Amino acid sequence: MTRQELMGVTELTRPQVDQRLGQLRELNLLEESNVSASTGGRRPRAVGIKPRTGYVLAVAMGVTGVTVGAVDLSGSIIDRRSAPIDVSSGPHDALGVCVELCQQLSGDIDGEPWAAGIAVPGPVDIGRGIVVSPPILPGWDQFPIRDWIAEKLHMAVWLDNDANAMALGEHRYGAGRGHGNMVYVKLGSGIGSGIIMGGVLQRGDGGGAGDVGHLPVPGASAPCPCGNVGCLEAVAGGLALGRVAAALAEDGRSPLLRTLAEDGAEPDASVLTRVAERGDPVALETLRLAGEQIGGVLASVVSLLNPSQLVLGGGLSHSGDILVSSIRKSLYARALPLASRDLLVRQAALGEAGGVLGAAELMVERLFSQGVLEQWIENGTPQNRPDLTRITAARA
Amino acid sequence: MTRQELMGVTELTRPQVDQRLGQLRELNLLEESNVSASTGGRRPRAVGIKPRTGYVLAVAMGVTGVTVGAVDLSGSIIDRRSAPIDVSSGPHDALGVCVELCQQLSGDIDGEPWAAGIAVPGPVDIGRGIVVSPPILPGWDQFPIRDWIAEKLHMAVWLDNDANAMALGEHRYGAGRGHGNMVYVKLGSGIGSGIIMGGVLQRGDGGGAGDVGHLPVPGASAPCPCGNVGCLEAVAGGLALGRVAAALAEDGRSPLLRTLAEDGAEPDASVLTRVAERGDPVALETLRLAGEQIGGVLASVVSLLNPSQLVLGGGLSHSGDILVSSIRKSLYARALPLASRDLLVRQAALGEAGGVLGAAELMVERLFSQGVLEQWIENGTPQNRPDLTRITAARA
Repeated sequence: MTRQELMGVTELTRPQVDQRLGQLRELNLLEESNVSASTGGRRPRAVGIKPRTGYVLAVAMGVTGVTVGAVDLSGSIIDRRSAPIDVSSGPHDALGVCVELCQQLSGDIDGEPWAAGIAVPGPVDIGRGIVVSPPILPGWDQFPIRDWIAEKLHMAVWLDNDANAMALGEHRYGAGRGHGNMVYVKLGSGIGSGIIMGGVLQRGDGGGAGDVGHLPVPGASAPCPCGNVGCLEAVAGGLALGRVAAALAEDGRSPLLRTLAEDGAEPDASVLTRVAERGDPVALETLRLAGEQIGGVLASVVSLLNPSQLVLGGGLSHSGDILVSSIRKSLYARALPLASRDLLVRQAALGEAGGVLGAAELMVERLFSQGVLEQWIENGTPQNRPDLTRITAARA
Repeated sequence: MTRQELMGVTELTRPQVDQRLGQLRELNLLEESNVSASTGGRRPRAVGIKPRTGYVLAVAMGVTGVTVGAVDLSGSIIDRRSAPIDVSSGPHDALGVCVELCQQLSGDIDGEPWAAGIAVPGPVDIGRGIVVSPPILPGWDQFPIRDWIAEKLHMAVWLDNDANAMALGEHRYGAGRGHGNMVYVKLGSGIGSGIIMGGVLQRGDGGGAGDVGHLPVPGASAPCPCGNVGCLEAVAGGLALGRVAAALAEDGRSPLLRTLAEDGAEPDASVLTRVAERGDPVALETLRLAGEQIGGVLASVVSLLNPSQLVLGGGLSHSGDILVSSIRKSLYARALPLASRDLLVRQAALGEAGGVLGAAELMVERLFSQGVLEQWIENGTPQNRPDLTRITAARA
């Protein structure tokens, strides 16, 4: 961007923009484009961050697998690795795999990583770096994830919720670019969301903001591991739909599911979708109902937050049109006119990379915060890594 | 505050704080405390805004009455006037009363007001300065409230939702001070809320954020003027409770309400509360159920936004303990542990003054924005009023 563009985006004055660019220059992080030799008029120079001055590790953890990426300062993925994990056996094994992938990756790349961002599928207490009563991470409650990984990797670590990371990723690099008010909804094994308001990821007081998966579905009574009944995740999440699919195969209400199951296919949400697309009426109705339930809860989110864009991501969102069109229908029918009038409902643009880019962004945002930059200027030479350790203790 | 304290609150650097204070000094808006003559050590000087350099008009409109205040730059109410209005006869009469009160008030005060902030009980399209399909302002849909008042008063006007204004008032001057993430809930004739996240009032894309009154109550089917059924406002708002009270008096299910009604008391929400406090079982159960319904919806708000504080205001919140304790019970039972763990539920501290202070703050915040200050420095002498006209066209 040019300085003029930066002033527009940040609403800072020219001296303020110059002062902050000066800090970046002092740290050898700034690059400026060459002055154009074109005829007449002064052409403004564009400024940017030198992308390869450093990189961060980004860990995007799911219920069945983890992807770790090395991401440079401009948000490009230098390299990435994936591996299966089993979260149900507790934190040690799964986090051990994460650490191993991190070490492999940084061993293959020039230079040491500066820090790591970790995104996990559960409610995260940002200040303490732990998950609190995570419904789909049994045995992980209160485990010191952040500090455990920080100790193994010898670097600063930021722990956050996976939907928050994906929201950041889509907002900075994907479908949400340019939208100051955006909600990213992850429709996967569980259901969660990340809320961007005023251009900023809003985590709330303790890091719990965005937990749409445990909002109640009117009339639903399915028990949820969180202790309540009728939570959205417990009736329309991927795991819940998998249980429905298994039951439909088992009792033969869906002959097609039964046949597939007998042929060895695990009847899960994606098999349910395939069967619905082939016209199976019971599977169709199951997905339509789930979409209606998701759309109804998202209508409340839209009425409450009035975002300009709702981005749907996660495995379920890519599983064909039946679910998503049912979500849209129910959402627009129920949300308030002022809130839904100009609302865009879009699919996530980055797929799996969104979680990695978002997990990296968790740390990169902190790196460029005023406090860290100032301390860095005071304490370090331009070639040094910034000192990110103290910010891991900060609140959201 | 001292410069040091300002740096802490704003996270700006010393040069940035000095630069902004310089702007205020140039406009003759800054006052500094005298250097202390105490022994030893340099005592830092405190800086502040000269409160009486100017003032704004603040209009807090309700369904049955309006209060207009003249508020100085430090948030002190110089003077105020109230009058009854009848919103059901359309906008012209009620807004005429608002304009008249504004003119009376500014006639009695030295100097011209700089601008006016107007808060109304309906969904506001901030960019256009109108209300959009307001359920409790029949006949006001799309009426150009902002421009109509601006033309009569010859000054810049900012139109916003009343719960947004009250949220700002409580956040800056009342119960919410120091809470970065706060939700203010207005329990009055209608039910609405204002959302502060990251210290900033979040209006969403079009100004519609915070509309809790039209979130659905599971199992409820009462029709709502908004076109949906089972909206919180339609089952537990003040108008709805008044209708229940009237029915309980009419059919004699509450003998006490019937007696009071026969003695000439209009059976409304406050009479219902009085009767409940005297032990009437049907009235008690009505309030308990309303509290449960309100608390259930607020649990979703808390799970979604994870505020550190929920401030309850509006007429119903002051009507005794029965309703509020039922709200608390249902809220804490349903909200997620991470979100409710450290949550404070408090009564609003400012009462009716909160709406007036908040409506003033709507404009004062804009006055001190970078764009306005800079334009003011460029175009005006220090004694001039700032040019606020162009900001009325800005989006939220």
